[in-house]
Amino acid sequence: MTMTYEDRVRELGLEIPDFSIDGYYGADTYGSMKPHHIVGNVLYLSGHTPDKSDGTVRYPGRLGANLTVEEGYQAARLTALNCLGGMRYALGSLDRVKGIVRSLCFVTSTPEFTDVHKVSSGATDLFVEVFGPEVGLGGRATIGVTSLAGGSCFENWVTVEIFE
Amino acid sequence: MTMTYEDRVRELGLEIPDFSIDGYYGADTYGSMKPHHIVGNVLYLSGHTPDKSDGTVRYPGRLGANLTVEEGYQAARLTALNCLGGMRYALGSLDRVKGIVRSLCFVTSTPEFTDVHKVSSGATDLFVEVFGPEVGLGGRATIGVTSLAGGSCFENWVTVEIFE
Amino acid sequence: MTMTYEDRVRELGLEIPDFSIDGYYGADTYGSMKPHHIVGNVLYLSGHTPDKSDGTVRYPGRLGANLTVEEGYQAARLTALNCLGGMRYALGSLDRVKGIVRSLCFVTSTPEFTDVHKVSSGATDLFVEVFGPEVGLGGRATIGVTSLAGGSCFENWVTVEIFE
Repeated sequence: MTMTYEDRVRELGLEIPDFSIDGYYGADTYGSMKPHHIVGNVLYLSGHTPDKSDGTVRYPGRLGANLTVEEGYQAARLTALNCLGGMRYALGSLDRVKGIVRSLCFVTSTPEFTDVHKVSSGATDLFVEVFGPEVGLGGRATIGVTSLAGGSCFENWVTVEIFE
Repeated sequence: MTMTYEDRVRELGLEIPDFSIDGYYGADTYGSMKPHHIVGNVLYLSGHTPDKSDGTVRYPGRLGANLTVEEGYQAARLTALNCLGGMRYALGSLDRVKGIVRSLCFVTSTPEFTDVHKVSSGATDLFVEVFGPEVGLGGRATIGVTSLAGGSCFENWVTVEIFE
Repeated sequence: MTMTYEDRVRELGLEIPDFSIDGYYGADTYGSMKPHHIVGNVLYLSGHTPDKSDGTVRYPGRLGANLTVEEGYQAARLTALNCLGGMRYALGSLDRVKGIVRSLCFVTSTPEFTDVHKVSSGATDLFVEVFGPEVGLGGRATIGVTSLAGGSCFENWVTVEIFE
């Protein structure tokens, strides 16, 4: 395709936060960390949540308690938009993405909730929308956790292969 | 040793699933992910569970509740066999494995269960059986989680150094 | 600065365990793993906890139950000292550290405890003390878990960029 990923994002009308203007919520809100680290052709992002840039927690709570699978899916989708913001902030442009290496997805959940993977797909499906399946699909694991920073229901820890 | 890893697997009589025939259960069953991603000489596998190739969950449940340490250990061993299947699927042959980099092991557990590391050893011991300690031992961390996809009790997220 | 990281550690009076003398508690105590694996210019450490070298668990328990945020922070700080011991053991000297790539931090916690990130900062703040913010800050994610090996309240799984 001759359409770039940045073209694709515009076509889809996706709202990606601009961390260079809004500040990077994770590092600002949550202590001693930086948004990412690059080694050679691999970009290691910090964990991203569905939080707004001002730190507002969206979809707080737990799957299996106050949140449905569909709400978790939407939270994961918002998280992926934040991840795209993180990639742009690190790389200047999404067009430097060569491939999603892997996603480690955390879902705040009760012990009875075993559909954690359906929540994660909210994030990884969005990567496929933007990058297509060849580039957008990566390895994945999803785990149910007792809690996340600030009461978030989802977090994605993404590794990305980039064009140097 | 002149015996290859593939020889060793045959000698041990290990039953490793063939994902090229049976399909890769993880991606088929659990949504938008791919089995692995390779960057240079590093293979990043998706999370593997003890599931059968048809998606049947083996040893469902939680350590500290319905499962014993020995059952968890066996589940982890089956998981490692699936990981070997994932390595073969990615690389063509286990003989391309240069070293296990690290395993991140997830054990579905109650808060009272603190022997999570004894469960993980079911996976990492098998890697040592096949590859020997120099190649088969990697870094490791094990964490107790509230839940995993489909109610699995164990999952292993493995990184492997390979011969390019 | 012309002060090396090893100088800095001496100046700060930090007590870093010497795993070459004391033995590496993780691998000795917790089964089939090795302390680290290096691929090219990336050092992958095993998970480190606040344990003493003899395996004594310091600050056992759970945040939100028997431990306060301040105790968790101290446990994370002790964990970072163990991580520095792990880096020295792997590299010979902390002066080979080029940058902290990322930390995945595990906090044993109740579902109600959502300050997991404040605990992790005990580890990552210490990295900044030793290496400064440019080198010492990495990507980070923190998750609340049901349990860790031996009843530990904290574990850090660190990736480090090194000078080859």
